[in-house]
Amino acid sequence: MEWWKAAAEEIITGASKTLENLDKQQVEKLVEMIVEAKDKKIFIDGMGRSGFVGRAFALRLMNLGFNVYFIGETITPAANAGDLVIAISGTGETKMVVTASMAAKEIGAKVAAITTYKDSSLAKTADHVLIMGGRTKKGWPREEDYLTRQLLGERESLTPLGSMFENNCMIFLDGLVVELMYKLKKTEEELKAKHATIE
Amino acid sequence: MEWWKAAAEEIITGASKTLENLDKQQVEKLVEMIVEAKDKKIFIDGMGRSGFVGRAFALRLMNLGFNVYFIGETITPAANAGDLVIAISGTGETKMVVTASMAAKEIGAKVAAITTYKDSSLAKTADHVLIMGGRTKKGWPREEDYLTRQLLGERESLTPLGSMFENNCMIFLDGLVVELMYKLKKTEEELKAKHATIE
Amino acid sequence: MEWWKAAAEEIITGASKTLENLDKQQVEKLVEMIVEAKDKKIFIDGMGRSGFVGRAFALRLMNLGFNVYFIGETITPAANAGDLVIAISGTGETKMVVTASMAAKEIGAKVAAITTYKDSSLAKTADHVLIMGGRTKKGWPREEDYLTRQLLGERESLTPLGSMFENNCMIFLDGLVVELMYKLKKTEEELKAKHATIE
Amino acid sequence: MEWWKAAAEEIITGASKTLENLDKQQVEKLVEMIVEAKDKKIFIDGMGRSGFVGRAFALRLMNLGFNVYFIGETITPAANAGDLVIAISGTGETKMVVTASMAAKEIGAKVAAITTYKDSSLAKTADHVLIMGGRTKKGWPREEDYLTRQLLGERESLTPLGSMFENNCMIFLDGLVVELMYKLKKTEEELKAKHATIE
Repeated sequence: MEWWKAAAEEIITGASKTLENLDKQQVEKLVEMIVEAKDKKIFIDGMGRSGFVGRAFALRLMNLGFNVYFIGETITPAANAGDLVIAISGTGETKMVVTASMAAKEIGAKVAAITTYKDSSLAKTADHVLIMGGRTKKGWPREEDYLTRQLLGERESLTPLGSMFENNCMIFLDGLVVELMYKLKKTEEELKAKHATIE
Repeated sequence: MEWWKAAAEEIITGASKTLENLDKQQVEKLVEMIVEAKDKKIFIDGMGRSGFVGRAFALRLMNLGFNVYFIGETITPAANAGDLVIAISGTGETKMVVTASMAAKEIGAKVAAITTYKDSSLAKTADHVLIMGGRTKKGWPREEDYLTRQLLGERESLTPLGSMFENNCMIFLDGLVVELMYKLKKTEEELKAKHATIE
Repeated sequence: MEWWKAAAEEIITGASKTLENLDKQQVEKLVEMIVEAKDKKIFIDGMGRSGFVGRAFALRLMNLGFNVYFIGETITPAANAGDLVIAISGTGETKMVVTASMAAKEIGAKVAAITTYKDSSLAKTADHVLIMGGRTKKGWPREEDYLTRQLLGERESLTPLGSMFENNCMIFLDGLVVELMYKLKKTEEELKAKHATIE
Repeated sequence: MEWWKAAAEEIITGASKTLENLDKQQVEKLVEMIVEAKDKKIFIDGMGRSGFVGRAFALRLMNLGFNVYFIGETITPAANAGDLVIAISGTGETKMVVTASMAAKEIGAKVAAITTYKDSSLAKTADHVLIMGGRTKKGWPREEDYLTRQLLGERESLTPLGSMFENNCMIFLDGLVVELMYKLKKTEEELKAKHATIE
């Protein structure tokens, strides 16, 4: 048996289901907040693998012409009132992300959170929350799901820790890039023109 | 119409097809090289979004107990003969990655490349190449495909630049993590025990 | 007048005075904590320019053979009881650093802080504090100094924000590297042998 | 004997001498190139510790209102003709930096190099070279100096590898920030207003 393939299929099937079940109004609101921040600054925040997914999204927002920064990188400037912070944390409890989110609120910036847990510390500080399913470091979001699955004899997830959340976010945010391309009438050529030429 | 959803579905369908068509011997050889590097050092290399996907993989290799480093980060030590470099570049022409790959070869380290183009500069320097389909910054890998699709009236890809390659790699490499867990008999609990506690 | 030269001289003179006035026992204790962490893990933490100085130090600790990581980078593993966190913040109030320091304490790791303010939040959470003079983002450490200087007609510092603190730390920590080389009987050749070969 | 202190003094004395001997025309030309790039983009490039010093400088250029980026970070956009790349490498042979410098030249961007070696690969590709003394990973810049020092019985440098070059650059570039503040009539308050508020 090829475990890599079984696991990859699990990720693909999981992503397909999760994205099918996303709350459309939550997505629309997030798109709206990003478009509204067009002449402001956008800050992406996340630690570890959520952070890498956030950086991949930040790079595309840069391609799209946004003033976007990743929190913790060198040239990240001051956030001001009206700027937008997009914070990504599966558990919603990553301390650095929660701290940054609270700092952003104090300044008057808006916070949009992408997390699995609507009652998490991050979700509570955020102006807008997009609930993204997927197993996280904490395990499955609701224990009853886990028990149900066990009772039903469903096999355990192959994918460790937060991998499913991170893949779901990666695919979703790359979808969002296309949505923004259409909203802002950007062609791929325009994105390419802004892509790093020294790498 | 929701463009984000159409694009996300395109990514998912594309990933499913691409992973189905991966050359199994190329995958097995890559797994073997990683397992053999267990008591050596592994260096992951990639720029931009390929780099973020590479970092996400590096983090999981660290969870699995490998001596793994990402080229360009602070504490990356010397590579020596027998160490393994895994280089990720869709086009296979990213200058920094090709340069690093050549430097690695000079030292006597082995290079495994993940790229879409078997004739790329990166592929040519590598000891082993895993061909990963997916549209890249250069467009679709083979122009005849592109023309065929146009002639058949198939719609253009929604997903800009290298996004499909990057998602395919992310999902594939997360699958590989599970393969390695089984090969090395690691449980999720063991991975978690090594996961960053200050973040 | 060449402002760059006047400012550089100010930095050099300032560093010279500051290092002269360092508390030797505080330095010795820091050296001792680092040497004791030889078979444990060391985590360096800092944001912005303090972070870059911290990374430069981390790189040298890696050259010296320590298991050292920079908090926030890819392969940073779990901290455990007995590990050492070295946190650098001029003001001692950088939220991310204070948060990380508190997280480290919860885990049972030891925290050594390098800061200008002995009553700062960072200093209060730390097991050991090394007071490093130098003007920070908050201005000069003690307002009376500032007033005294004004009364005496001394000119304002040329060097903006935390630059003096950061230069003082850079020079001090590079000095510490030599101290550790002697303590651990490492030659420069041994350091070089561990230095990145792919860059 | 306190080695840390002796080494720190060596760094300070070395920096003082090196900056005294900088070629003023080389400095003026660099300042001019930076000021001319005010409405263009500036890219800072360097690996390892030279890179950290470069990032510290990039952060201050951001404070000063420049469109500045660090090569390799997330949101680094395309360089175009007329943009400025400032490349830092003690040896002038760091492969990644030389490669990036050549890529920049192909695009039509200007390259200013800071290096110890006027005949290095980096210096040869650059439009302008600022020679910064200081021992580097290669050892002292001119072997005759080394021999002279040995003959005279001068003791070996305490400071390993490129530490002196990096400290010299750090102090010099922080001096340059003050020069630019005066040239651009920026106050410290204006710099502070742009400094990261979420950190």
